[in-house]
Amino acid sequence: MEKKKLTVIKIGGNVIDNQKVLTQFLQDFSKLETPKILVHGGGKAATRLAGKLGVESIMIEGRRVTNEEMLDVAIMTYAGLCNKKIVAQLQSSQTSAIGLTGADGNSIVSKRRENSTYDYGYVGDIIEINSEWIKFLLDTDTIPVFCAITHDKKGQLLNTNADSIAQSLAVGLSAFYETTLLYCFEKKGVLQDIEDENSIIETINYSSYQQLKKDNIIHSGMIPKLDNCFEALKQGVTNIIISNPEIINNFNHSHTCITL
Amino acid sequence: MEKKKLTVIKIGGNVIDNQKVLTQFLQDFSKLETPKILVHGGGKAATRLAGKLGVESIMIEGRRVTNEEMLDVAIMTYAGLCNKKIVAQLQSSQTSAIGLTGADGNSIVSKRRENSTYDYGYVGDIIEINSEWIKFLLDTDTIPVFCAITHDKKGQLLNTNADSIAQSLAVGLSAFYETTLLYCFEKKGVLQDIEDENSIIETINYSSYQQLKKDNIIHSGMIPKLDNCFEALKQGVTNIIISNPEIINNFNHSHTCITL
Repeated sequence: MEKKKLTVIKIGGNVIDNQKVLTQFLQDFSKLETPKILVHGGGKAATRLAGKLGVESIMIEGRRVTNEEMLDVAIMTYAGLCNKKIVAQLQSSQTSAIGLTGADGNSIVSKRRENSTYDYGYVGDIIEINSEWIKFLLDTDTIPVFCAITHDKKGQLLNTNADSIAQSLAVGLSAFYETTLLYCFEKKGVLQDIEDENSIIETINYSSYQQLKKDNIIHSGMIPKLDNCFEALKQGVTNIIISNPEIINNFNHSHTCITL
Repeated sequence: MEKKKLTVIKIGGNVIDNQKVLTQFLQDFSKLETPKILVHGGGKAATRLAGKLGVESIMIEGRRVTNEEMLDVAIMTYAGLCNKKIVAQLQSSQTSAIGLTGADGNSIVSKRRENSTYDYGYVGDIIEINSEWIKFLLDTDTIPVFCAITHDKKGQLLNTNADSIAQSLAVGLSAFYETTLLYCFEKKGVLQDIEDENSIIETINYSSYQQLKKDNIIHSGMIPKLDNCFEALKQGVTNIIISNPEIINNFNHSHTCITL
């Protein structure tokens, strides 16, 4: 039997932090063929709230160090403010969304990161996705909206990278669906020339990826992102696309397609 | 066919604000026969966060006035911090809980309060419960944990009294279940003599309620609570019990039973 299609879309700060862009995105998202899942990062809301509360934001290699106070800030902004406002907006577009952390329905179990060069605090690496329960939600036309919080099943919530959540959901749900994973960020795709916004690399496969790294065209933050993409493809995800939010309106919009 | 039993339990600040009491309560709650639903208020967390952020807390007749900033504080603390920590704790006791606002799954629709003597701001009065969807969750052994936030289906989240949420859920789900509504507060029940913690009135029916009001034994904040109880019984709720959190461990514990 042919598998149904599922789209997992990850949006970042460039969408979350701009109410006009977010509203347009959510309207487009609600028109998208179902089933679908939305995953969002927290954008600047956590840093802003932390600032107001006098909680210091420490970043190591682009990742936030999450002490207890910062975890509370992350829970309040990601799982509270950002997530629930997105859900309420989707409801107004006739999309019955549900906002989730990994604790809800035991949907994403993670393990506190250990043996790292740095102590990232309450940061979790995903170990299990409850795909069957998520499929049950999708079967009732309820659209999951995940924020960047998971849990360890022992009562502890953990801050978790939203890209990794999107990847793990796409992999886990590939058991039931033909899955497309769509990363929306601020550019139209991976750029050949960082100075030229239109120099989109249309396709990256594993072999061209090695060359792009060697030529230093792909570097720093893009490397873990693409490593995750290839891992996801190996684990059963059908399509991976990197573009800006306009892509969900028009799949002919410029984008980078990642293939094995 | 005989209806399955459902217990809807509302906990307030006396449970939420004391980590030890909350942990004990959640352990007891997780052992309780399913299906069940938990509804929680926000306790002092919102007032505390508002204080830190310099957002003024204005109360009129025991209800918080919710301007835009205070609504954000309520969303962050009720739907974020309190709700998700409860869910994570329940997961550690093998109870697959799910944290919800009324926006999630369009489960509780409310209408911003109008024509009031005071402007309470972003405060919603419940107009509809999506009982079928909540039943779906219960059918998969997922335990809903509701916080005191609903939505208007037009994109606006609204602060909503947790007692009213518990009452509306119990009424709405009475279509499918024989429903018990349990209000846990700081006392063992409604007191005959406010000075005597053990002077529990065992049963209050509609006629004795009128007398208790006349004698000024029941007054102020307890009146809207009990008005709601009688309304719920008229609309199909089977049992209503008022006690402290220990009741869920032992239904022989002192309590007040409300009957028509």
